[in-house]
Amino acid sequence: MTTTDLARARTRVPRDVDSDYTHAMAAKRREFVRERTGADLSHVAQYSFDPAILPGNIENFAGVAQVPIGIAGPLRILGEHAAGDFYIPLATTEGTLVASYNRGMRLLTECGGVKTTVVEQYMQRAPVFVFDDARQSREFGRWVDEHMEQIRQVAEATTRIGKLKHIGQYQVGPLRYLRFNYTTGDAAGQNMTGKATLAACEWIKQEYPVAMKYILSGNIDTDKKHSRINMLLTRGKRVVAEVVVPKNLLKEIMGIDTGYLFWARQIQMVGAFLAGSASNAAHVANALTAVFIATGQDVANVAESHASITYVQQLENGDFYWSITLPSLIVATYGGGTGLATQRQCLEMLGCAGAGHANKLAEICAAVVLAGETSLVGAVLHGDWVSSHERLGRNR
Amino acid sequence: MTTTDLARARTRVPRDVDSDYTHAMAAKRREFVRERTGADLSHVAQYSFDPAILPGNIENFAGVAQVPIGIAGPLRILGEHAAGDFYIPLATTEGTLVASYNRGMRLLTECGGVKTTVVEQYMQRAPVFVFDDARQSREFGRWVDEHMEQIRQVAEATTRIGKLKHIGQYQVGPLRYLRFNYTTGDAAGQNMTGKATLAACEWIKQEYPVAMKYILSGNIDTDKKHSRINMLLTRGKRVVAEVVVPKNLLKEIMGIDTGYLFWARQIQMVGAFLAGSASNAAHVANALTAVFIATGQDVANVAESHASITYVQQLENGDFYWSITLPSLIVATYGGGTGLATQRQCLEMLGCAGAGHANKLAEICAAVVLAGETSLVGAVLHGDWVSSHERLGRNR
Amino acid sequence: MTTTDLARARTRVPRDVDSDYTHAMAAKRREFVRERTGADLSHVAQYSFDPAILPGNIENFAGVAQVPIGIAGPLRILGEHAAGDFYIPLATTEGTLVASYNRGMRLLTECGGVKTTVVEQYMQRAPVFVFDDARQSREFGRWVDEHMEQIRQVAEATTRIGKLKHIGQYQVGPLRYLRFNYTTGDAAGQNMTGKATLAACEWIKQEYPVAMKYILSGNIDTDKKHSRINMLLTRGKRVVAEVVVPKNLLKEIMGIDTGYLFWARQIQMVGAFLAGSASNAAHVANALTAVFIATGQDVANVAESHASITYVQQLENGDFYWSITLPSLIVATYGGGTGLATQRQCLEMLGCAGAGHANKLAEICAAVVLAGETSLVGAVLHGDWVSSHERLGRNR
Amino acid sequence: MTTTDLARARTRVPRDVDSDYTHAMAAKRREFVRERTGADLSHVAQYSFDPAILPGNIENFAGVAQVPIGIAGPLRILGEHAAGDFYIPLATTEGTLVASYNRGMRLLTECGGVKTTVVEQYMQRAPVFVFDDARQSREFGRWVDEHMEQIRQVAEATTRIGKLKHIGQYQVGPLRYLRFNYTTGDAAGQNMTGKATLAACEWIKQEYPVAMKYILSGNIDTDKKHSRINMLLTRGKRVVAEVVVPKNLLKEIMGIDTGYLFWARQIQMVGAFLAGSASNAAHVANALTAVFIATGQDVANVAESHASITYVQQLENGDFYWSITLPSLIVATYGGGTGLATQRQCLEMLGCAGAGHANKLAEICAAVVLAGETSLVGAVLHGDWVSSHERLGRNR
Repeated sequence: MTTTDLARARTRVPRDVDSDYTHAMAAKRREFVRERTGADLSHVAQYSFDPAILPGNIENFAGVAQVPIGIAGPLRILGEHAAGDFYIPLATTEGTLVASYNRGMRLLTECGGVKTTVVEQYMQRAPVFVFDDARQSREFGRWVDEHMEQIRQVAEATTRIGKLKHIGQYQVGPLRYLRFNYTTGDAAGQNMTGKATLAACEWIKQEYPVAMKYILSGNIDTDKKHSRINMLLTRGKRVVAEVVVPKNLLKEIMGIDTGYLFWARQIQMVGAFLAGSASNAAHVANALTAVFIATGQDVANVAESHASITYVQQLENGDFYWSITLPSLIVATYGGGTGLATQRQCLEMLGCAGAGHANKLAEICAAVVLAGETSLVGAVLHGDWVSSHERLGRNR
Repeated sequence: MTTTDLARARTRVPRDVDSDYTHAMAAKRREFVRERTGADLSHVAQYSFDPAILPGNIENFAGVAQVPIGIAGPLRILGEHAAGDFYIPLATTEGTLVASYNRGMRLLTECGGVKTTVVEQYMQRAPVFVFDDARQSREFGRWVDEHMEQIRQVAEATTRIGKLKHIGQYQVGPLRYLRFNYTTGDAAGQNMTGKATLAACEWIKQEYPVAMKYILSGNIDTDKKHSRINMLLTRGKRVVAEVVVPKNLLKEIMGIDTGYLFWARQIQMVGAFLAGSASNAAHVANALTAVFIATGQDVANVAESHASITYVQQLENGDFYWSITLPSLIVATYGGGTGLATQRQCLEMLGCAGAGHANKLAEICAAVVLAGETSLVGAVLHGDWVSSHERLGRNR
Repeated sequence: MTTTDLARARTRVPRDVDSDYTHAMAAKRREFVRERTGADLSHVAQYSFDPAILPGNIENFAGVAQVPIGIAGPLRILGEHAAGDFYIPLATTEGTLVASYNRGMRLLTECGGVKTTVVEQYMQRAPVFVFDDARQSREFGRWVDEHMEQIRQVAEATTRIGKLKHIGQYQVGPLRYLRFNYTTGDAAGQNMTGKATLAACEWIKQEYPVAMKYILSGNIDTDKKHSRINMLLTRGKRVVAEVVVPKNLLKEIMGIDTGYLFWARQIQMVGAFLAGSASNAAHVANALTAVFIATGQDVANVAESHASITYVQQLENGDFYWSITLPSLIVATYGGGTGLATQRQCLEMLGCAGAGHANKLAEICAAVVLAGETSLVGAVLHGDWVSSHERLGRNR
Repeated sequence: MTTTDLARARTRVPRDVDSDYTHAMAAKRREFVRERTGADLSHVAQYSFDPAILPGNIENFAGVAQVPIGIAGPLRILGEHAAGDFYIPLATTEGTLVASYNRGMRLLTECGGVKTTVVEQYMQRAPVFVFDDARQSREFGRWVDEHMEQIRQVAEATTRIGKLKHIGQYQVGPLRYLRFNYTTGDAAGQNMTGKATLAACEWIKQEYPVAMKYILSGNIDTDKKHSRINMLLTRGKRVVAEVVVPKNLLKEIMGIDTGYLFWARQIQMVGAFLAGSASNAAHVANALTAVFIATGQDVANVAESHASITYVQQLENGDFYWSITLPSLIVATYGGGTGLATQRQCLEMLGCAGAGHANKLAEICAAVVLAGETSLVGAVLHGDWVSSHERLGRNR
């Protein structure tokens, strides 16, 4: 070992190749951090599970972030998968959030419940194939169409669950971006589709008569980021929540008139259009983040999942039809963080633990989102938005 | 009490108006959930702090989500606020993530460190003023410009910290959207700016000679959602991380050539442009989400914060200049969840706890993001992206 | 006739129900304008064709705009439809434009010519079907898929040429937007597809068991406007032009080095991404507008057609691969203004008059666009952009 | 002369360095085209002006495109610059267009006229300055702010008319994009601002103590292309047209009810948002293109100018408030093609010829746009859209 190697070794976070997922190793890493940064990680050390469950979820485990969970509800959902009254675990550190969603849930429940529908669902991996010119690339596209059945077999051979539904093709110059669309059961499916698509690409590379290069992601998947292609063509699940809010109930609970709400809605839709926003709604990300953290979702998918489209109408009797569509909601009840200790308990609280419940969780998410929309928009229009933050939030 | 009221009361989540932030009330709520859903929240119950610290952070507290934290690093940062070698707490449930960032940090550190720069910073609240016609609206805009000094005084009177820097004006028809831009010290500032802007709006409404309506948010703030206006005009902090990667180091650590990387970059930039993506990078949201959860940020701001622009050049000597710009990164070291138990410890680990450190945290975030970019792009191009997920992730 | 009716009649532009497309009626309208506005339309009166050819192209004909045509070329095109050296009629009033394109054409021709490829083509009409809720809407989508064959027959029965290829479906709330994709031969096809889709919608409305409303355009066609959906999914023709520019030739003709060009390209791609632009190229609309006016295209389609994606690479030998992709280029050689006097002559000049030449014209357009890109980018980088406008343009 | 040179000379479009703008040279070029392509350009030859007026408008002049002009109107405009009843010259080859606009104008006129307002105006040139790192770039931004007065003087010294109003700054990595915003009188101003900005850049380069490179356009101007930055921050003129349509009048003239219109509007706004469109209106580009060709505008600016935002409300009495905002309308009454023969006559017809009338022309454009919107939306909703094209268009 050279001096440099030694120095480097001393700065390296301790790891035990044979037995890394233990209380002892976690403690050793906290101690390592304490020595080097002075930070006491005593609270981080307070977790209630055996680290042996963690492989596949984290490396260099040192403890946990304790994120407070508040309970909101009941929220009546009239879904195809989620049907009944639900209590929602919201993991957040933002004051007012739980209270505000709670209020929205009360409104929706008193309206008779929120109707939820999963419209379609696909998870993607999108390689790009690079040819010498545009014509080669176009010909390749035809070949892909003609060999769809074989490509499907190769891709699906890598997974018990994933099914390759269709491949979107998008050409730019000599580049042929292929967007593989899969269904992935109750997993979010990013890894599953990555593996399946890699197999498909390797098969294609081997079979296709003309030499080319490919990159497994050409950046149109579009993973962990908002995009127009996601909004248009669905990533994860496309889910709708909708409700008719009676005029008198809106007045009673939110203190505002449906006519005023409809008037304001025109202005806020224009604002969203002007701003080039990923959403013409108010604060979809709040609901999703709080549910995602509580239930062990990949929280980074808030980037994609917060895209949303509000569509409303005032009915002839003065009632208010309110819908929100989440075109790229990514949720899972299997894999990822869904099996961890608190996360699984929160899924159980929703009746969503384990395989067979991803659509149910998607419907719940959409319903919670709609509850939050009614509450925040109500607060903004009624003028108690700031004052409630004064009362419940950190401004004191 | 009517029967309906009674029924409703029985479904309501227990609350104690006088003393709600106690272990007892948390337990009562968990019991309430158990009775109604059958879910055992025993793990959720395992938190290490006194609930008395929670007002302003959550309502209806019942326990915590335990999100595993892995330690990555050291990451050498050559910032104006963050300078030195850092160990980064990453709260995630996604296997491979910590390992991948760790690898990127090794590369950046061996390059000599990543240079970080906070370029500008503003937090917004954007009301809309509604007039009878476009001319009234335009005249109002002039009046606002002329009364900027008074508006500033009224707004700033509501806050010790917030400073109103300028007001952007955007007209559509008879609507005048005003985007108030503040600096907010070490707080993220959404509430602070909401309160200040409300005061300003009320003053304007009172002083302006022509009758109008206003809505405190016209949806161009744009809060908790990605937008083009955020990317262009900054929301939160606009931060740059940059590094020059020597050709041989990239080869040694990532196994790829800078020429190949530059070639692939052209293709991935085109992909992002084609897809209408919020980012032409790879997976910015992963870094931000993991740091945000660990350090008590408002994680929903990943929606805005993940917007990003990669800009690269291959240098004449074959080395690779790599920069990433986060135009709307929202972080705080004061307020929100930053004072909670594990969150504060993680901030301490970064030397970022308390006032005076928001820019430092912003620089750290940008540096971590860049580390993750080098690692994932390296893996995709080298072909070990899927296999590493196989080894470390949930696919087994 | 009341006094009001009389007054109104006096202000009405003269029309002759039986014989309106005559020199006499055109003269009468010019006289009408002269009386009411004082404007002498003597130049407008100088057209060379019989107005009898105009029905289907214009109403209330009064004369013509004389738009100067300059000749650029030769431009060597190595297309599948356009092959050979072309002289291009450019109708414009902007000084420098013809000279600049001419220079670019010289470069491309000396490079051996520009390779052009029509990658795919569809014209759309996109009705929206409105149901009571999202589930009805989703069910409807399935029905449409199942009845695709009948829908195709009904649609295609209205046209000799149009073929319905596929229907994209996009749901928001209870709304089901259907995007009918047709091929339309050598016509642009907006009217043809409107008529066919109307027939299909009426058939659907009659056959579908559940009551709904529909609107023939739900605004995702998207006609006469740029959109992300057009860029992704093609509107009109998706055409690529590509060339390899030898390093020495670029230096000789444009005075710049390929390395410098590639460096600058990184910066201009980032600029386009930052700005949220419909094109990461320089001035595609200039070429298209000038060719469109000259050849009788629907010039308003510049809105859609100017969307464009530049993809470049520097080759190992220092040469420069340059491609541009026009994903929504709308051109016709039949119908619309293509049969008018000067317009037809310009089409003849390109060997594109009449049916069977739309792909050829599309290739020519793309080649001209690429010529203009090389020239303007060259001028900007070489520093003679402003000076050439000084010399040739209106700044004197 | 080598053989190659000779060959090249034979393919070159004839030019006469000393006297190129003559009937004789135009004839020589037509003959050249005839020889090489077989195309007879006899109609192209039919222009009514002396080619001597053309320098600054075209090179290699060979004749004209004769674009039919139809007269629509009267259109009552209640503008600040355009006030009265106008007859509008529409140069188009698309059947139905003039008739449809005519119908819309009748509606607006019977409503009492359309109110038009120019809200703000700027023309841009946007260079990018490239530094070694982000900090240098940020410092440069401060220096620019501090030297604004000197920069203004240098820029304005190049032009009698242009005034530099402010410089927007946008940083990505080490790149500092500066967007110079000018007012340009009655010229569109692209060349004027290019020249002024070049002078400013050269001065900056000379004065700034740190070495840098700059490119005169970094692609965020954004010239000849639609962009979000244009929509937000105005390019050319930001103009609003608005009208209140009485319920009974809409029924009488368009055959539809305001309630139905408002209902449909919700759906079409959602469609535009979903599609990622540059406009939530129907066919703005049609009006602009037809007026632009007739009046000698730079028609390629339809790319920018067609961006548009519709904002509507249904009033309590059932009437319909309808506005359209064109945030990047580029028009001129001086320079470019405005002085040519037919173009000037069409401007005279509008009372817009020569300096002092650009705002008037902008108002007229917006009013015509609104007329077209009412007519097309009316036709789509009333169900006579396709049938009118059948009657008046090319489908027969």
